Amino acid sequence: MERAGSSTSRPVMLAIAGDSAAGKTTLTKGLVDALGADRITSLCVDDYHCYDRQERKGLPFTALHPDCNYVQIMEQHLQLLATGQPVLKPVYDHDTGQLTRPELVEPTEFVIVEGLLPLHTRLAQACFDITVYLDPPEHIRREWKVKRDTTKRGYTPEQVLAELDKREPESEEFIRPQRSAADIVVRFGPIEARQDPPDTPLSAELTLRPTVRHPDLTGVFRESDRRAMHLKLKRDEDGRPVEGLHVHGYVPREESRLLEKAIWAELDTESELPSTLGHIGEDTRSEPLAITQLLLLYHMLDSVR
Amino acid sequence: MERAGSSTSRPVMLAIAGDSAAGKTTLTKGLVDALGADRITSLCVDDYHCYDRQERKGLPFTALHPDCNYVQIMEQHLQLLATGQPVLKPVYDHDTGQLTRPELVEPTEFVIVEGLLPLHTRLAQACFDITVYLDPPEHIRREWKVKRDTTKRGYTPEQVLAELDKREPESEEFIRPQRSAADIVVRFGPIEARQDPPDTPLSAELTLRPTVRHPDLTGVFRESDRRAMHLKLKRDEDGRPVEGLHVHGYVPREESRLLEKAIWAELDTESELPSTLGHIGEDTRSEPLAITQLLLLYHMLDSVR
Repeated sequence: MERAGSSTSRPVMLAIAGDSAAGKTTLTKGLVDALGADRITSLCVDDYHCYDRQERKGLPFTALHPDCNYVQIMEQHLQLLATGQPVLKPVYDHDTGQLTRPELVEPTEFVIVEGLLPLHTRLAQACFDITVYLDPPEHIRREWKVKRDTTKRGYTPEQVLAELDKREPESEEFIRPQRSAADIVVRFGPIEARQDPPDTPLSAELTLRPTVRHPDLTGVFRESDRRAMHLKLKRDEDGRPVEGLHVHGYVPREESRLLEKAIWAELDTESELPSTLGHIGEDTRSEPLAITQLLLLYHMLDSVR
Repeated sequence: MERAGSSTSRPVMLAIAGDSAAGKTTLTKGLVDALGADRITSLCVDDYHCYDRQERKGLPFTALHPDCNYVQIMEQHLQLLATGQPVLKPVYDHDTGQLTRPELVEPTEFVIVEGLLPLHTRLAQACFDITVYLDPPEHIRREWKVKRDTTKRGYTPEQVLAELDKREPESEEFIRPQRSAADIVVRFGPIEARQDPPDTPLSAELTLRPTVRHPDLTGVFRESDRRAMHLKLKRDEDGRPVEGLHVHGYVPREESRLLEKAIWAELDTESELPSTLGHIGEDTRSEPLAITQLLLLYHMLDSVR
């Protein structure tokens, strides 16, 4: 299979699906920073809305509904990108709620496609090398959405909560079913069995489906019982066998570093382990986020080999 | 070859290329009116400009230059349309000079693609069943452009003439070479050998290349010497053999009707000869325009058979 190098080579395609404010942008940013904008292209399929905010007010569904999106055009553009061709992508301006002039997207070595519905159809799913679904507990996601939409998009908390309630039936019908199409399900949240204080850093619970070849991490977990990281064989919600990788929010740096090194070593690369991972905003570093991003980076780089 | 009927069937694709104000819209309108908007889709590839009017002011070329257009995306969209697939087409607003939200174009039974550069590349040319180039004498086109741009686009005559001069090198380099890729070259203008008064209706000089099968019109021209219509075998500018069909502006209705009937009879159809052809604006009917449109209609309907 021909990969990057000539202009018509196929890029590695990564999907990051998830509901509004599930953490897609934060996850994506660390990957773009790690690989550099000249090697990686990221786009958001929420740009494929077919109605602007004003038009949606008169419609019986929200922006989450497939009928509110040019799904067929999204599929077409994903196919074009996956085969190394440029697309003229529509643009939805989240600030003004308007559809504006489209922009040229030319695939580079890696393409990240994030958004509400990138895995909605079988044809769209087939365009990706690796698929991720972000699945935070609902109360965490609501918290994140209120925080973002009140500080960055000018809404009141009441407006955001009302919008969340309005969207819930469509989240259930169209967004959450994408979880079952993901190679990796990522759940950032508090550890449910524990009663940690509210400022405890969030943990990551990664569900690794055997639909792609994950790095062999058994060595890291064989040596001794890790305090703050676990790898378990388990059944997913639907009964299918998966691996569960758990990285606690309070994991000591030296312990998470062992896992990072094990993942990176599997790549058999001479380049340095990127230092840009795990950033939340300007100043905060999250070990669970760093591990999650590193695992995705592993899969992207592994797809090129 | 599968044609219209199912949603993925191939439409008949007609290109109408020509310089600014060469008469593309007038020619297209009669065809759309004749077939009806449910059977025919028309689009303008000038929408594929990649810079808006403001941005172009700082650039060393005009809107006619291929570098000022997303030619690769235009080719991609033409290929998609030609294979029966929808596209999300960019939109250039001629009134404001801005690029705005794109619009969904779903091919129907027939697709007309008009504009400055629809035949610029071999790949674009290959997407069409019939190709037309509009080639009025330059003094006629300048007259038309001044009239349109001063009445409809708010320019002064001096501005339009200055713009025409600025564009001339790019017209020569990029627009006029498309003439040689056309199955039919259409030249509306006064008869050069005559000194008719200025209000004499324009004649049509159609150059019919043997690249498509034209209707057999020898019967119409055999019977007697027509006064105001001629069909001649000749050599084109480049020496290649072509037919020249000449319809004078003052052709009597009964004479042009003979030609219309002969073209229509070749289609072997039971439907009526459309009455919407030949209209210029609201009140004027041009026999040469009607014949030209009928010939294009013939080719479109013939492609479906």
